[in-house]
Amino acid sequence: MSAVLDTCRRAAAVKHTIGALRTTEKNRVLLAIADALEAHREDIKAANALDIAAGRENGLNEGLIDRLTLDDSRIDGVADGCRAVAALPDPVGEVSEMKLTPNGLKIGKKRVPMGVIGIIYESRPNVTVDAAALCFKAGSACVLRGGKEAYRSNRCLMDIMRGAVESCGLPADCLNLIDDLTHEGANEMMRANGLIDVLIPRGGAGLIRAVVSSATVPVIETGTGNCHIYVDASADLDMALEILNNAKCQRVSVCNAAESLLVHSSVAEKFLPIAQRRLNESHVILHGCPRTCAILPDILPATEEDYGKEYLDYEMSVKIVDSLDEAIEHINRYNTGHSEAIVTHDYFAAQKFLDLVDAAAVYVNASTRFTDGGEFGFGAEIGISTQKLHARGPMGLRELTTNKYIIYGEGQIR
Amino acid sequence: MSAVLDTCRRAAAVKHTIGALRTTEKNRVLLAIADALEAHREDIKAANALDIAAGRENGLNEGLIDRLTLDDSRIDGVADGCRAVAALPDPVGEVSEMKLTPNGLKIGKKRVPMGVIGIIYESRPNVTVDAAALCFKAGSACVLRGGKEAYRSNRCLMDIMRGAVESCGLPADCLNLIDDLTHEGANEMMRANGLIDVLIPRGGAGLIRAVVSSATVPVIETGTGNCHIYVDASADLDMALEILNNAKCQRVSVCNAAESLLVHSSVAEKFLPIAQRRLNESHVILHGCPRTCAILPDILPATEEDYGKEYLDYEMSVKIVDSLDEAIEHINRYNTGHSEAIVTHDYFAAQKFLDLVDAAAVYVNASTRFTDGGEFGFGAEIGISTQKLHARGPMGLRELTTNKYIIYGEGQIR
Repeated sequence: MSAVLDTCRRAAAVKHTIGALRTTEKNRVLLAIADALEAHREDIKAANALDIAAGRENGLNEGLIDRLTLDDSRIDGVADGCRAVAALPDPVGEVSEMKLTPNGLKIGKKRVPMGVIGIIYESRPNVTVDAAALCFKAGSACVLRGGKEAYRSNRCLMDIMRGAVESCGLPADCLNLIDDLTHEGANEMMRANGLIDVLIPRGGAGLIRAVVSSATVPVIETGTGNCHIYVDASADLDMALEILNNAKCQRVSVCNAAESLLVHSSVAEKFLPIAQRRLNESHVILHGCPRTCAILPDILPATEEDYGKEYLDYEMSVKIVDSLDEAIEHINRYNTGHSEAIVTHDYFAAQKFLDLVDAAAVYVNASTRFTDGGEFGFGAEIGISTQKLHARGPMGLRELTTNKYIIYGEGQIR
Repeated sequence: MSAVLDTCRRAAAVKHTIGALRTTEKNRVLLAIADALEAHREDIKAANALDIAAGRENGLNEGLIDRLTLDDSRIDGVADGCRAVAALPDPVGEVSEMKLTPNGLKIGKKRVPMGVIGIIYESRPNVTVDAAALCFKAGSACVLRGGKEAYRSNRCLMDIMRGAVESCGLPADCLNLIDDLTHEGANEMMRANGLIDVLIPRGGAGLIRAVVSSATVPVIETGTGNCHIYVDASADLDMALEILNNAKCQRVSVCNAAESLLVHSSVAEKFLPIAQRRLNESHVILHGCPRTCAILPDILPATEEDYGKEYLDYEMSVKIVDSLDEAIEHINRYNTGHSEAIVTHDYFAAQKFLDLVDAAAVYVNASTRFTDGGEFGFGAEIGISTQKLHARGPMGLRELTTNKYIIYGEGQIR
């Protein structure tokens, strides 16, 4: 058996142990992990320094080096993150929809752990701790596979966490990190049916595509967001300006940032020049449809590719539409099922947009930037699901669990 | 574009139309389909006769010929099935967990259609109507791929249903049947990402394995059931006998039938002989562990393979265990995550079994045969999910839908 499958097998072997833990026991472990991370901060920084040195040698840009870096304040952050997860309510064990059937069976739906959760992610080493803490609190063993550039940091964080788990008298194999970072290793993990119950890729569009096309274990797609702001004919243009600016510029590198602006033709001549002026403050590059370019002659023309693009940068496509229907059709054609917003005063336009736009989160008169586990009140999130199966939108602890039916009988037969 | 992808594309093109229909409109279509199936019963029987003749020529056994056959009473059955689906409550549009966030956003979780549901199934042509009716009521377009042996029947049923949809003024492409029944055609359907939102294989273990290993669209596994009856030390042995007999013999070819009997060693000498006598009435072949064989010397020895086998026949594996823990461990090792039952008088044994057995449905003192959409009160089901993602256990209309978050704002930005 390969090292990867062996890791998966060891995780599966302890899943029933961790699944049966009480909330107080799980919280005690999470607090022990937080303390251990703080106690070993010098080890973490030393391992991280090696990753950073190797990254610089390999020519990583400063943005990536920054994502890779674990300084004291970030170590405090991941430790506090564990404590925050410990403070969250435990979804496991809740029984909903308990009912009595005509023949006297009591049937209830009980929330239970997944078993083994696999997560494949990219550069940021703090994900190693965040993901492990969430999976643990959700009662599942985890198998994590981080990026090559962060391997030494991830290994150090994982060893500290596993030590803390053991110090609480529990098997370290509740938390696992894959050491084999080859393509073959990834493929083994993606095809570990029977060992891994769900696989969550967290990262860029390329990673997610690769996992979706190769995995045979169930996958939850996360992340890519080609989000639109549609300024309706009846929009309050000042409100539209604030929402547009916030959704585009507050943080450009995140999946819930807006990438495309649609403007109703009846307000385009008035709105587009003020929108351009506002976005210019952040040096946003605009790619417009021909009618937009006629109003804003100094911008770039939008290609078909622009409409489908998640820039993750100070860049945006702009299109004038003649109706709400045209806006909805455009969005349903080019979006990635993440977050979409209409700015309008019109009751019927608001309802139609909410009804017909096909996305995880659909907004009326608010910024798309709110699609986030914290903002939605979940406390913490493992990612934003953009697929329709199991979980759609921010995934918190609840979405990391499944259910089983429990049935109390008195000898019933069919 | 291939014929298969073209069909998927046409389904996707109308998904927003069907998704926006009101319940009354959908019900009107379902009743029109029921009427049309009855009105065209001679056409259906004629097409079916061709399938049956071809089946006999190809040497199908009588069991399969029976599954293939559509006589008047079965045609009445599928038509009534459509009327029953029309009578079910519509899950689409329900908004749950609407809440007001601290910054004044109103966030709710709205149940919405999947979009396009693909279903790959085997011989029985009535599935064509059942599946189409459920998907339609759930607000999704469907792409169905039935078995080769039933193709003429399926095509006839589908043409009648599409005609009924059109007669109601709606696009026929809401309902689709794949004509290309080659392996390549199946693969195209399984990899139609962006067109098919979820794929549900309905059939034997081989079909389901093939779909799980080839599909890149999200899949819900259904069906295979290696279900156990565990007779605990404290069991009422009369009750255990009735439950065992019902779970094994009432209908052997279904996924919720029992395939394996576990008996606590303290009651084995008493229970096994009476169990054998009772099962002998239905000529059940037993495969026992060495200790079982010592008590019942005339049975076959069980191999490792027997413990993992879904016989779907008058056949059963039997094993003596020395504790509840050993029973749970055996079940979690060999089961397929379907339905498991304990017969016991012991409160703690019952709770432990419910807590620790990893399956879609876990029973205390009742037959596993109750794992069924109808018995669970869902009215109709598309199958029994044995995976943990999205839906686990019987899948009714609700499980054929997804959700999106809708957010009402007043200009909020982050």
